Amino acid sequence: MRQLRATVPDESMLERLRGVVPEVQLSVWRPDSGPGPGAAVDLAVLPYMVGPDYLAHLDGRPVRIIQSQMLGHDRVDELLPAGMTYCNAVRVHESSTAELAIALVLASQRGLSTFRDQQAERRWSRFRTPGLLGARVLVVGAGGVGQQVAARLAGFEADVQLVARTSRASTYGPVLAMGAIWDELPKSDVVILAVPLTDETRGLADARFLGAMRDGALLVNVARGPVVDTDALVREVAAGRLRAALDVVDPEPLPAEHPLWSLDSVLISPHVGGETESMTAAVDRLIVGQLRRLVAGKAPEHVVCQR
Amino acid sequence: MRQLRATVPDESMLERLRGVVPEVQLSVWRPDSGPGPGAAVDLAVLPYMVGPDYLAHLDGRPVRIIQSQMLGHDRVDELLPAGMTYCNAVRVHESSTAELAIALVLASQRGLSTFRDQQAERRWSRFRTPGLLGARVLVVGAGGVGQQVAARLAGFEADVQLVARTSRASTYGPVLAMGAIWDELPKSDVVILAVPLTDETRGLADARFLGAMRDGALLVNVARGPVVDTDALVREVAAGRLRAALDVVDPEPLPAEHPLWSLDSVLISPHVGGETESMTAAVDRLIVGQLRRLVAGKAPEHVVCQR
Repeated sequence: MRQLRATVPDESMLERLRGVVPEVQLSVWRPDSGPGPGAAVDLAVLPYMVGPDYLAHLDGRPVRIIQSQMLGHDRVDELLPAGMTYCNAVRVHESSTAELAIALVLASQRGLSTFRDQQAERRWSRFRTPGLLGARVLVVGAGGVGQQVAARLAGFEADVQLVARTSRASTYGPVLAMGAIWDELPKSDVVILAVPLTDETRGLADARFLGAMRDGALLVNVARGPVVDTDALVREVAAGRLRAALDVVDPEPLPAEHPLWSLDSVLISPHVGGETESMTAAVDRLIVGQLRRLVAGKAPEHVVCQR
Repeated sequence: MRQLRATVPDESMLERLRGVVPEVQLSVWRPDSGPGPGAAVDLAVLPYMVGPDYLAHLDGRPVRIIQSQMLGHDRVDELLPAGMTYCNAVRVHESSTAELAIALVLASQRGLSTFRDQQAERRWSRFRTPGLLGARVLVVGAGGVGQQVAARLAGFEADVQLVARTSRASTYGPVLAMGAIWDELPKSDVVILAVPLTDETRGLADARFLGAMRDGALLVNVARGPVVDTDALVREVAAGRLRAALDVVDPEPLPAEHPLWSLDSVLISPHVGGETESMTAAVDRLIVGQLRRLVAGKAPEHVVCQR
């Protein structure tokens, strides 16, 4: 059997993983720069935070399995080069993204953005905020992120409801089918978007969806920017009807002239749902697991698409 | 038996409570302004957010029971006028204060202050933050607030340790005695102060305590300002060694010229731990409960001090 080969996108990952799975020869290769990998590659780890168009750099390269460091995989089915298998990063970002969702909810419900603005003016000015206690929270999406959001909300004495593509039971109570949002949106104080970006979820939070939300409610997006109709959201927030906290926007990066920046009741974080210090160890665990499967002659886990 | 009488500090509370306990005659009286209550008062509700010196306004007034809207009661034992009973506001602020503690922890661990600052500059700039996932969190205080903090932390995959005056078992794992902080501080990524202000806790987080915290750790104070030696904290933060998130400071309100305002890695909220929309209903529940006890000839609940 020939030597198994894998590539990683940077030296620091190589340093961390070197020798951990000795049967696999590791080298650094960043598909969008420099020469090819030299020989056939069994598994190529992509850089973090690259969009689906990045897959064009793999076209014609001798790569069997592509391991992404991201959870989302919109348009991979259409852009994956022939002969390749694409795996996403499961159990790397879900907890961290859910944690950020709760951070955004709490910061918004407790006025922390305004307090930070006041801090810049050295101003001590108290006001009452909605809080999360007793609020009704709708979590849209009950996959890895949605479930971790629900797990974290459990301690907050809030009234949490999950909706997803199909209705089912879950550890966090009944999950309603997506059609139920039209009953749920008018009752919810906080709506958290935690769905993958697919043809079905693109533009999900459009003018009708946002219009069904109650006055003063908070929309939190930790999914993907295009799940929200940004123009419709800007209108609702500018009118003072809704508030928002967005880790993902459309477009990204958000251009300096975009109206979202200047809306006081929008809090923006720059797509850092998965970007915590625990990510490195989680990525390493994922890759080591995949390499060990290769050595054992097994198929990789978390296959999203195979062409 | 003579008519029972109670006073409330503002018209809106009177409106909400009028007729709820019909055996008690209710009127508005704010002890620091205007004439006396007119006749003997069985229970006087104080305004929210008044310090212990406020009790001087009750001196010589015909009041039997004083009902505070606050949980903290430092110096009440020394300042309460003779012949009076003082009750604090139990089960009004604990959950809300714990919620703010978690909001401050998450905002700090996920860089939300910096992202808000970047938003003011319309700047999309990503960086990695520590996160809460996998962090070690020390909760100092295991009373109402400390327990609610632990309840909320339970979902976050963090390693939570409670310390309090005396060691004991709890729903949230073993509570260590206060002496254990010298072992715990160097191991903790986040330290949350949730103790009442007493002679024992005044200055608890002094230079030695802060010096024992690990490099880069976060101190969160939702207790009372004087629990922390502010000058010592300013030194540690200015040196880049610690970060802090403070809902309470010493002095309050924080003067515009105070150095805390300008430290980037300090997040300040203006003593709003209990200040959420759910507070009104919780205060009303407390007062109605006390009035019903009076009518039934029972002693009030939550007596802190009696002279």
